[in-house]
Amino acid sequence: MGIENKKWIGTMKIKSKINGAESLVRTLVHNDVNVCFANPGTSEMHFVGALDKVPGIRCVLGLFEGVLTGAADGYYRMSRKPASTLLHLGPGLGNALASIHNAKKAHSGMINIIGQHTLQHLEVESPLTSDIEAIARPMSHWVKTSTKSMDLSKDGAKAIEYAKKAPGKIASLILPADTAWGEGGDIIKAKNAGIRGKVDEVNIKKVAKILTNGKHSTLILGGEALTEEATLLAGKISSNTGCGIITEAANARLSRGAGRLDMLRIPGAGVVERALAMLDKAGQLVLVASKPPVAFFGYPNKPSLLYKENVPIVNLVEVDEDIVSALTDLAIELGAINELPNHIAIAKRPERPSGNITKEKLAMAIGATLPENAIVVDESVTTGRDFFPATAGAPPHDWLNNRGGAIGYGMPVAIGAAIACPDRKVILLEGDGSGMYTVQSLWTMARENLDITILIFANRTYEILRGELTNVGIQNPGPRAVDMLTLDRPYIDWVNVAKGMGVEALQVNNCEKLLKALDVGIKKDGPFLIEIIF
Amino acid sequence: MGIENKKWIGTMKIKSKINGAESLVRTLVHNDVNVCFANPGTSEMHFVGALDKVPGIRCVLGLFEGVLTGAADGYYRMSRKPASTLLHLGPGLGNALASIHNAKKAHSGMINIIGQHTLQHLEVESPLTSDIEAIARPMSHWVKTSTKSMDLSKDGAKAIEYAKKAPGKIASLILPADTAWGEGGDIIKAKNAGIRGKVDEVNIKKVAKILTNGKHSTLILGGEALTEEATLLAGKISSNTGCGIITEAANARLSRGAGRLDMLRIPGAGVVERALAMLDKAGQLVLVASKPPVAFFGYPNKPSLLYKENVPIVNLVEVDEDIVSALTDLAIELGAINELPNHIAIAKRPERPSGNITKEKLAMAIGATLPENAIVVDESVTTGRDFFPATAGAPPHDWLNNRGGAIGYGMPVAIGAAIACPDRKVILLEGDGSGMYTVQSLWTMARENLDITILIFANRTYEILRGELTNVGIQNPGPRAVDMLTLDRPYIDWVNVAKGMGVEALQVNNCEKLLKALDVGIKKDGPFLIEIIF
Repeated sequence: MGIENKKWIGTMKIKSKINGAESLVRTLVHNDVNVCFANPGTSEMHFVGALDKVPGIRCVLGLFEGVLTGAADGYYRMSRKPASTLLHLGPGLGNALASIHNAKKAHSGMINIIGQHTLQHLEVESPLTSDIEAIARPMSHWVKTSTKSMDLSKDGAKAIEYAKKAPGKIASLILPADTAWGEGGDIIKAKNAGIRGKVDEVNIKKVAKILTNGKHSTLILGGEALTEEATLLAGKISSNTGCGIITEAANARLSRGAGRLDMLRIPGAGVVERALAMLDKAGQLVLVASKPPVAFFGYPNKPSLLYKENVPIVNLVEVDEDIVSALTDLAIELGAINELPNHIAIAKRPERPSGNITKEKLAMAIGATLPENAIVVDESVTTGRDFFPATAGAPPHDWLNNRGGAIGYGMPVAIGAAIACPDRKVILLEGDGSGMYTVQSLWTMARENLDITILIFANRTYEILRGELTNVGIQNPGPRAVDMLTLDRPYIDWVNVAKGMGVEALQVNNCEKLLKALDVGIKKDGPFLIEIIF
Repeated sequence: MGIENKKWIGTMKIKSKINGAESLVRTLVHNDVNVCFANPGTSEMHFVGALDKVPGIRCVLGLFEGVLTGAADGYYRMSRKPASTLLHLGPGLGNALASIHNAKKAHSGMINIIGQHTLQHLEVESPLTSDIEAIARPMSHWVKTSTKSMDLSKDGAKAIEYAKKAPGKIASLILPADTAWGEGGDIIKAKNAGIRGKVDEVNIKKVAKILTNGKHSTLILGGEALTEEATLLAGKISSNTGCGIITEAANARLSRGAGRLDMLRIPGAGVVERALAMLDKAGQLVLVASKPPVAFFGYPNKPSLLYKENVPIVNLVEVDEDIVSALTDLAIELGAINELPNHIAIAKRPERPSGNITKEKLAMAIGATLPENAIVVDESVTTGRDFFPATAGAPPHDWLNNRGGAIGYGMPVAIGAAIACPDRKVILLEGDGSGMYTVQSLWTMARENLDITILIFANRTYEILRGELTNVGIQNPGPRAVDMLTLDRPYIDWVNVAKGMGVEALQVNNCEKLLKALDVGIKKDGPFLIEIIF
């Protein structure tokens, strides 16, 4: 690899003719980092200048930084490749943190490039001075300030190496302005640190033994055990052993639909009893790139762990290991490799619903219209808790959930997914409360004409919190408490908001109008927003 | 004070009848913290329940956390009192950081209450788990996780004590859910740590000597040297010594208008040459609650310090000392205390402009219509660089600038200012690029019917960055670079965006329409947005 790199440099003969910023951009492109989600400021102008010169990297502008890092998250989930982001100093990074948090929990790799003052200017206290490394650290796996323009490409390659690890990591590279404008070094090929280790045979045999000990077991799938290939292997294991298969509460990307596995998620935020009930019936737990299931929040007199202390739990494969190979080995060990997979969803769409809109009919409408190969980005919070049964027999699609719990994840992730997969339709399921956190996303969707149909579930309340008041033991909340959870004073008029940012939009209040709007949105090549009043 | 507090507790007899959250809310109210800017989640439900019960604290809901901490900043500037904020876990705090950064640089005190999982739940890795203390630390002066419900009111009092220091500080109190719902302790009176020290007589004499050594001098005013009282004292000193008076580049709150001092600010971001030219003529520098002037950014071949190395600089008074008393002592020492102040602005409004809109005519329109006692929140970036001369003779008003440089400051600060001063009109000068960062503010303005007239300067570009490309030495930027600084693809239609969030709005494209809209907005009791195309 070292030789190949040197050869390439030799051919380019660009050493010392370029500045640090250009050496970094060329290093990104050389390592197949082809997108930069950007919101630049003064300190990043040389990086912008370099993006201008170097072909092979798409620049996507966002009006708020949480849009950018969320988009990088969505991009990684669908392309399995890290994107870069460009952020303006400490406050720009601050704005990006909630989306980075979600990406980190989803194991999405990204390379954050954060502009910084010149090293000399850092010695004076100016308005934008802040401790960027300290701001980056809590949400990053790797943080470095590049202090020499000649080393910038090397530091960039290190960031890329980290971001590409299995599973993906958050790399934050801080770029002082003078490091960007000083003389640049070689273009560097990043080390490949993304190799997944194989699971030991002993462990495979141990798991096989548990699955055949006569007691009921359930596989809990997570991470890349949710690809079509891996889930079908899990289906074979279920055919052979009779085990159940469920997924973690939130999945970075779940392959599902007709001909794929039909699995339920562990119920998530706000419904701990439902989760406890599901796991109570699950028997022995086999973790497949997943973690022992825990509650979303701690509640008075309710457990944080969702399984009983005496339940046997075994780990088949870790999230950073070779998952398909572990499942294959287990299927072989069980003699299940040639079985037909269990739990396969049959192609079947629900009826097109009519009349007033309910949560059940919303699920039917989505199941009835979901286009083949769609990417569903799900931030439907309370509304969409039970969308799975009615959509399981729809054409094959991917379903993306929020693993970090920081709301405002949906719109940015939809942007990244659409950019990663320009030939696929993105269906975004969004709450009215959660959508407002990163509402600036709509402008980027319009600017890039991204193929996203946005469903806003306008219940005009932080509905989840109404339930949570009761869950934490607050009976009969007074008017001021209820008012704090209400979004109807004033109503958010999503059609106006969307139009204001260049996105076509419609409001619907019955199933007929909803289905008609879905048909329009799905047919359209570009963003389309449907505000659903129910 | 200790005795007074115990007496009060005795009367209330509420010990052990309340939970931790209520003990904290009662401690806030007992210490005159009467506003909570909130965006609660599950972990904060008991705090919401307590806000419901306890009178004397106004809850203001925001749809994004940067709105809340920015509002607390504006509230402090106008009331000189800290507000509390309620934020949901690490990501909620992350969203709030950029506005906290600006508040910190403006010396605005605030008490951030950040919900956290129960201590037991922190032992499992759940979606929203993050290192909240680490996220808080870079932008806070004081950080503590309260781990015992009985100690929560004591920890709250400590947070209040810090926030009220002179100048204001950022206190971040992390509130685990079980600390909120467990048994609460006494209501605590916070120590008064806000006492300002007096400047030494020796220093007063030293500054007097410099001001009378026959060389030209300039006072640079900052912090609370910008109150009407302090600036008039500075004016007397100028009458006596002939010294110039300017302010820092950005002021947390500057008293100006007819009958008050007419001062220029040091030019800020993007125009370092203009700043250097002003300071080149300033002679000896006397700092009055200000810092030695530095450039906003470092640029190639331009200095970070705005004054020459051999220029004498003396410090009259620090930002945390007794500023009025220092200026009084200096005026007495100089024999200036009975002089009429110099540089007083005469009451004079500019003509009402007509025809097409230019930056100069915008300044005239504002000067011609600014209502008495207005609060001008200025995030006009490039458009408003020269708004001062045309507005100096308008009726008395306060002018608030962004001291932290993190954009998106204007709308939230306007909210806080309007809540602190319900009898005063807030005029918000906002760029179209910067306004989008915290656009969710509009909803809170509508919800609270805040008396804010919002002027959006829709130049449809990150205009400041166009200049900065040249400033950092990038000649002839290519189309991709220019595209990254452009906001016209698509246009943001601010009228629709505002209406979508419940705020009445108009678009204007000539001076006649602008003046008419200003008259409507100023007359209206509530928010009104004017999108100015020019």
